[in-house]
Amino acid sequence: MKETKESAVAPPVVDGARLWSTLMSLGRIGETPRGMDRIAFSPSEIEARAFVTGLLREAGLATRIDAAGNLIATKPGVESGLRPIAMGSHIDTVPMGGKFDGALGVLGAIEVVRTLADRGLTTRHPLEVIAFTNEEGGRFHRGLFGSRAMAGLLVPDDLTVTDDEGKGLAEHLAAVGGDRARLAEAVRRPGSLAGYLEYHIEQGPELERDGKEIGVVTGITGRFVLEVDIQGMTNHAGTTPMDLRRDAMVAAAHVALAVERLARQKTCRVGTLGVVQVKPGAVNVIPGFVHLEAEFRDLEMARLEETERRFADACREIASDTHTTIAVKRQEIVRSAPTAPGFRGAVESVSRSLGYTTMAVPSGAGHDAQAIAELTEIGMIFVPSQAGISHAIEEFTPAEDCARGANVLLGTLLELDGKLP
Amino acid sequence: MKETKESAVAPPVVDGARLWSTLMSLGRIGETPRGMDRIAFSPSEIEARAFVTGLLREAGLATRIDAAGNLIATKPGVESGLRPIAMGSHIDTVPMGGKFDGALGVLGAIEVVRTLADRGLTTRHPLEVIAFTNEEGGRFHRGLFGSRAMAGLLVPDDLTVTDDEGKGLAEHLAAVGGDRARLAEAVRRPGSLAGYLEYHIEQGPELERDGKEIGVVTGITGRFVLEVDIQGMTNHAGTTPMDLRRDAMVAAAHVALAVERLARQKTCRVGTLGVVQVKPGAVNVIPGFVHLEAEFRDLEMARLEETERRFADACREIASDTHTTIAVKRQEIVRSAPTAPGFRGAVESVSRSLGYTTMAVPSGAGHDAQAIAELTEIGMIFVPSQAGISHAIEEFTPAEDCARGANVLLGTLLELDGKLP
Repeated sequence: MKETKESAVAPPVVDGARLWSTLMSLGRIGETPRGMDRIAFSPSEIEARAFVTGLLREAGLATRIDAAGNLIATKPGVESGLRPIAMGSHIDTVPMGGKFDGALGVLGAIEVVRTLADRGLTTRHPLEVIAFTNEEGGRFHRGLFGSRAMAGLLVPDDLTVTDDEGKGLAEHLAAVGGDRARLAEAVRRPGSLAGYLEYHIEQGPELERDGKEIGVVTGITGRFVLEVDIQGMTNHAGTTPMDLRRDAMVAAAHVALAVERLARQKTCRVGTLGVVQVKPGAVNVIPGFVHLEAEFRDLEMARLEETERRFADACREIASDTHTTIAVKRQEIVRSAPTAPGFRGAVESVSRSLGYTTMAVPSGAGHDAQAIAELTEIGMIFVPSQAGISHAIEEFTPAEDCARGANVLLGTLLELDGKLP
Repeated sequence: MKETKESAVAPPVVDGARLWSTLMSLGRIGETPRGMDRIAFSPSEIEARAFVTGLLREAGLATRIDAAGNLIATKPGVESGLRPIAMGSHIDTVPMGGKFDGALGVLGAIEVVRTLADRGLTTRHPLEVIAFTNEEGGRFHRGLFGSRAMAGLLVPDDLTVTDDEGKGLAEHLAAVGGDRARLAEAVRRPGSLAGYLEYHIEQGPELERDGKEIGVVTGITGRFVLEVDIQGMTNHAGTTPMDLRRDAMVAAAHVALAVERLARQKTCRVGTLGVVQVKPGAVNVIPGFVHLEAEFRDLEMARLEETERRFADACREIASDTHTTIAVKRQEIVRSAPTAPGFRGAVESVSRSLGYTTMAVPSGAGHDAQAIAELTEIGMIFVPSQAGISHAIEEFTPAEDCARGANVLLGTLLELDGKLP
């Protein structure tokens, strides 16, 4: 293996200290004692847009805002007629979020274009660096707004929502230079990009657990959200003998364990029961009704469909055993977005040539890449999240890990630039 | 057996039609399309007090209201120096309650004293008929108010509560002739009654299921209410692998099944998990915290203590298996109140002499008898509840069943009157 490394041509590397410095600077915009508060369209997010715009212009890129408020920076390529390769992520945060989720992807891409400029390196393809609007859904509780707008995936509800203060989309978009009335102009044609690369923190514990430096993302997992309504019979907890009960909570406990069992048995990657509502909810009354919301995630939609079938079978059996009726219905289906094999291969080979350890990982969290996958082939690069924590003040990835990911982004971009039509 | 029945002297019997008529009349006071709405101190409950007072006076009894608002009717006995035998229950209902719970016990006792008067029968002991205040706790969410006041069991919180409209105890007591400032005067000395009999609907399904006419109540079950706090770790439902989770809801599901298992294995009579609060409670977040409230009931306190020990053991094991911490603490302990063997024997023999089928049953629900057990020996008589339903508009016991119970109350009173000192 050592031979391979030495014989490979090492790709150029970024300025890790500069990247870290911009990360820390951006991390002061919206910083609070309880974490980052930079939700989309907030004064701090608008300030962050200005900071990022400044960096992009400094790196020689032209910037514009599309109707969906996406901040798009462009740099021409040397070969005419080629479609752009885009890199990006987002700079909004969840309330009480961290400094790395999203920001690292945008600043990593900026560091890449700065490095190219510093070294006088050009690309065949035009390049784009994009900071997508409201990825987190911290505003309106609807995520991936900008990337879905670009991919033509917005639904009518996305346009009519108001935030917790009663302000609507039009007003917020106008404040960042977008235009609700012209949202259709933000939609891009499938095939109009040569490819899309997103660099992000893992937001999970697997790289750290296995001691790997770079996550070669296999794709963004799909997600089945199921609602389960259990109808038993409300009755007196003191006077109803055990053998005459139709206890919806006992059934719910079995359902909770079925969710866990299906995932533990690898029917799908993960399964979680996060919502449990018990009625009437008094200590001396046998619950007559329980509402549950469960979700399953996997990279393969067929496996999710199989999980859903087995889950429904388990619920039927539980209903029969507990003398309850259990209705399972789909609340939401999010399709998985596999990364392109060629993009994965490039991430893998560039990482190796840089001497980094790698691991193939799916992304359990959603990302803008998931929507952009409707337009073009995608690739994603992960670096470790300390203790697997994200969306919290404890979210952390050391400077050298951040630099490694940016180096892989740079190398992958150059490799794809050479290969992609 | 036939010989025994024929050789026994049949006790006198009540006027079943008259009892039913008073039940139906009282059942029109506070009646709504959704059930009885006669919560303590409401205008309809005050009207019901007047109706019952009229019946008692008509039967020749003297009535008074004690400081706790208990309606107490007295009739002298023929032998001087004897302590009274009391009969009673309550005339308040839960919101959307039925016409039988409580009312049958008070009107059954009134039918007994009317029958005695009609037949010119006298008793050695003085008699009391008592309608206790706010048994259901429909007001203030604190039950057995009048009987606990009489037994000296009130706690400071009982005196300072306000109802959902902000009205306090003093105001409500004054409206029915009680007096919060003189509550100590309502307390009676242990041993000051010769005995207490309460006639009630079963509020459970066991008599009906086994086809029995009279329930010979073995006692009112004790109750352990336990709070369970489960601390796991809140985390991303998409990015946290199954083997690295500390899912408080998975632990809670195991705890729910442990509650059920302990009761099904007869460690105690019944066990119920009625309160489940999951945090943060979002479908895409692994629950980091779950609060549960469970209760166990049994007639034997030693069995409840054993159940509590086994439950704590189960929780320790679950915590270890699920990598959570589980804290179990007592929220409330209600001591069981066994009926006196002599009283049970009298109910049994009187029922047999009347040709009624009987069954020994514990009471899973609380009753005023439970508090009065602090003052004197108690006995209780149950009649079947159709489909086991109570605290609902569907609560029903046919007229002939109601008459049977009143006959047993009358016979038991006469038998105890002959035997008790």
